[in-house]
Amino acid sequence: MDNYPSRLLENAVNELAKLPGIGRKTALRLAMHLLRQNPVDVEMMCNTLNDMAKNIRYCSECNSISDKSICDICNSHNRDKTVICVVEDIRDVMAIENTGQYRGIYHVLGGIISPIDGIGPDDLKIASLVEKVAKGSIKEVIMAFSTTIEGDTTNFYIYKKLKGLNIIVSTIARGISIGDDIEYADQITLGRSIINRTLYENMLADSGKS
Amino acid sequence: MDNYPSRLLENAVNELAKLPGIGRKTALRLAMHLLRQNPVDVEMMCNTLNDMAKNIRYCSECNSISDKSICDICNSHNRDKTVICVVEDIRDVMAIENTGQYRGIYHVLGGIISPIDGIGPDDLKIASLVEKVAKGSIKEVIMAFSTTIEGDTTNFYIYKKLKGLNIIVSTIARGISIGDDIEYADQITLGRSIINRTLYENMLADSGKS
Repeated sequence: MDNYPSRLLENAVNELAKLPGIGRKTALRLAMHLLRQNPVDVEMMCNTLNDMAKNIRYCSECNSISDKSICDICNSHNRDKTVICVVEDIRDVMAIENTGQYRGIYHVLGGIISPIDGIGPDDLKIASLVEKVAKGSIKEVIMAFSTTIEGDTTNFYIYKKLKGLNIIVSTIARGISIGDDIEYADQITLGRSIINRTLYENMLADSGKS
Repeated sequence: MDNYPSRLLENAVNELAKLPGIGRKTALRLAMHLLRQNPVDVEMMCNTLNDMAKNIRYCSECNSISDKSICDICNSHNRDKTVICVVEDIRDVMAIENTGQYRGIYHVLGGIISPIDGIGPDDLKIASLVEKVAKGSIKEVIMAFSTTIEGDTTNFYIYKKLKGLNIIVSTIARGISIGDDIEYADQITLGRSIINRTLYENMLADSGKS
């Protein structure tokens, strides 16, 4: 359909269009941008991406991305090693760290159970989580997944795996986002926000902290 | 503000965030995607981009991107070499070619006059256009730029340069897009569409052609 005037350009567009959220029109725009740059700068970008793809390392404890064999969080003396927060990927670790509200450690699954994408429990670091918990020093596992079918499935699967291990298994609170109108909230979220209501004096104390 | 757990990841995000329309969150999403790929595939993408950046060639006649020294359009015997359509970049050539309505040749400026971005007439292939027209075989120059301040400025600048050369200088029609509601059209577009109205029998003939 597209009549690219150059094979070099077409190949570049094909590669860029493989990236998630980048369609062929955007890929062409990106390729045109790269053509306006100095080839040395394009090479530097490519070297940086290659360097990451080849040399990235993962924390041997929590599976988070790290330049060290054990990441700063797992290695810290100030973190509570008896509480594990289970997340999909490193972006969730960064988001939770940015809140400044969590002092435990993490366990990064490296994905989420998604039959549509062909990702099952065995593709994720679930076995190593169960193993870690089975050793006995963990008191609580907090599951922090997005509220999607895939997130709920992963929640339930991990809950079943950990149920017999005599620990607390919790999931992050669902409720009305700050700034949201109650009248536009969906029924399930609003329902859960009533069931899991917070004592007002606790909320006051929380606001004071942050 | 962001606390990347790895220098390699942070460098990759920094490079990807230089691309137009890619913010830091999207750059991180792209970097995570690349990490899930086989490093060999990332290397192939990078080689393809480098190959394009280093080896791309431009048609010596029209300045369009081409793998040959003269592009297929300039080299074709079926194109009318007395009509030149002036465009900003290769994407506009591709868009106009897709209409199947144009049989002349092109002249690619390689950009558009934009003082905000520091792009003046001397940064574009305007001198070579004037030179080409001054040789005398050109009958008409059609300017096909976006309807932005930059496009209008470029239109006017080129018009002034070509005015004395005894050729027709035209610009693509502005009017109501097909599928658009008249009541939502802006005043200027609607005004121009009335001034430059088309004989209904001509429009019927056009529809029959395409």
